[in-house]
Amino acid sequence: MIKLIALYRKPDDPEAFFAHYRDVHTPLVRRLPGLERLVLDRVTADAFGAEPAYVLIAEMHFADRETFKNAMRSKENAAVAEDLGGFARGLATVLIAEATVDG
Amino acid sequence: MIKLIALYRKPDDPEAFFAHYRDVHTPLVRRLPGLERLVLDRVTADAFGAEPAYVLIAEMHFADRETFKNAMRSKENAAVAEDLGGFARGLATVLIAEATVDG
Repeated sequence: MIKLIALYRKPDDPEAFFAHYRDVHTPLVRRLPGLERLVLDRVTADAFGAEPAYVLIAEMHFADRETFKNAMRSKENAAVAEDLGGFARGLATVLIAEATVDG
Repeated sequence: MIKLIALYRKPDDPEAFFAHYRDVHTPLVRRLPGLERLVLDRVTADAFGAEPAYVLIAEMHFADRETFKNAMRSKENAAVAEDLGGFARGLATVLIAEATVDG
């Protein structure tokens, strides 16, 4: 499985950020062709007591690399990227990963 | 669901790091009481072409906060933490998150 993993640093206005994420960004992400699942990890703490490096980790799951590539090339993804460049400018690190369940 | 999410920066010797992760660290993690699932996200790229901030993201899934707390207090977790402080010293950011599937 291929995952697109977006790590969001703390915004200046967390309330506005999460409202936009929920009401505007999530509906755009859901339209990505081939998206199997969207998982939202809301960070509550750093395990060693530091200020958490991120407030939100969003995982978008795709069955395989071909499905993922098609999603990235889609007009729906252009809308996702444009929205990201607005509400999350400078806040998001986005990684591509191969995921395996182990144990 | 509660997740413990470990983000690993690039080690000096990736081959030795991944061998230790697979052969030593993973068996220790599997022994955590209440662990529902261990998911390993092997990072292959940064979506915007940068050097990826992390090489590996490990997710440990627990049913709820109580199960998670018991796991963290266990002797098995002391062994996990001790091993982490060796092979991954200075490389790991570990976050606690509440996860929801959305869409």
